[in-house]
Amino acid sequence: MDKQPRKFDKELDELKKKLIHMAALAETMIDKTVRELVDRDERLAEKVPGYEEELNRLQIEIDEAALTLLATRQPVASDLRFIMAATKINGDLERIGDLAINITENVHVLAQHPPLKPLIDIPRMADLARKMVRESLEAFVGGDPLLAQSVIMTDVQVDALKEQVLRELLTYMIGDPRTIERALALILIARHLERIADHATNIAEDVIYMIQGRDVRHPRTPKERPPGLEV
Amino acid sequence: MDKQPRKFDKELDELKKKLIHMAALAETMIDKTVRELVDRDERLAEKVPGYEEELNRLQIEIDEAALTLLATRQPVASDLRFIMAATKINGDLERIGDLAINITENVHVLAQHPPLKPLIDIPRMADLARKMVRESLEAFVGGDPLLAQSVIMTDVQVDALKEQVLRELLTYMIGDPRTIERALALILIARHLERIADHATNIAEDVIYMIQGRDVRHPRTPKERPPGLEV
Repeated sequence: MDKQPRKFDKELDELKKKLIHMAALAETMIDKTVRELVDRDERLAEKVPGYEEELNRLQIEIDEAALTLLATRQPVASDLRFIMAATKINGDLERIGDLAINITENVHVLAQHPPLKPLIDIPRMADLARKMVRESLEAFVGGDPLLAQSVIMTDVQVDALKEQVLRELLTYMIGDPRTIERALALILIARHLERIADHATNIAEDVIYMIQGRDVRHPRTPKERPPGLEV
Repeated sequence: MDKQPRKFDKELDELKKKLIHMAALAETMIDKTVRELVDRDERLAEKVPGYEEELNRLQIEIDEAALTLLATRQPVASDLRFIMAATKINGDLERIGDLAINITENVHVLAQHPPLKPLIDIPRMADLARKMVRESLEAFVGGDPLLAQSVIMTDVQVDALKEQVLRELLTYMIGDPRTIERALALILIARHLERIADHATNIAEDVIYMIQGRDVRHPRTPKERPPGLEV
């Protein structure tokens, strides 16, 4: 073997490692933020803004590394698709970080009021979303289309939980106007978690596209969506 | 001049045209959806789901064209940055289409109830968001960093309008529980419009990055954000 391809493989590995690091940070942000919400202990998420800054930095590093690789290595076929996927996935992971920050802000609003109800569905949504983020990156790194497919299927569960949260909290709001601000904050947290799951789904779809060259990004027509409030 | 570069320029032009077409579709979707909301005439937005399908198709076409250009032309420098920007911008435009669909679904909920209040801020948000989408693409095509910068600055106005809408509708909800479902639908529409403006801002930031090689994507630290409900 000559030296060039081995150096290139190392550069691709470096890109992978940065993306895995981004995913681990995003997962930690979701975990800490939702634990702060459940345990009502604001020290739990105090490092979350710092993680977001690290995510931003990594996103830029990955874009720069991808541009350099494209310009200097002029990759084709699967390497090219891998690098293109990396520059899309870093954007999804960065936005997951932004959403975790949004959740934190709603958690701070809730911390100023007594708890509205025991939280069950929102922590479940958070667990599923974290699993989706982790597994979408595992699918990317391992080139595993089946794992990516299972991430896409999990999104249906997250959507169903969000609908359930919305319906339940609407009932609270209508029954007692004093619950409105808290219920709205919880609805928005559920919405942010659902969007995190959507970003993990985007990543999984990019992985399948990368591996199989098949586009799975728009499988549903709008007509199949259930009617009702679109949170 | 030899033939190759001229053909390449034509291919780049083709990519530009597809992106402009996507932006025009996205703008039309926002316009029709919000006009349906204001005029309470559901025929206005009946073509919106069809436009979304066209956006999805164009997104895939642009990714495929970009991969082909990268593999066959092996561009460097500004051409490379242009193609990379195109593959990020198409994702933002496709998500703007998704958000317009989300708005439509909330508009359908509102159509089943009498109007809650005359709508002023939401149509203003829609006008600003449409302008931002159009101008971010003009900045991309014309390589105009000043126009991109003005798009980024407009986002502050959209955010302020969203806050205003939220505060006003919270007052309605607390004052009369019968308004809750409608007020929530309007809050969510405002939220979707604000996210459309965020995507236009992402596009404008990618344009500046493309032109100047300077990253403007993370100028604000989380600490600068105002406290309160993060819709």
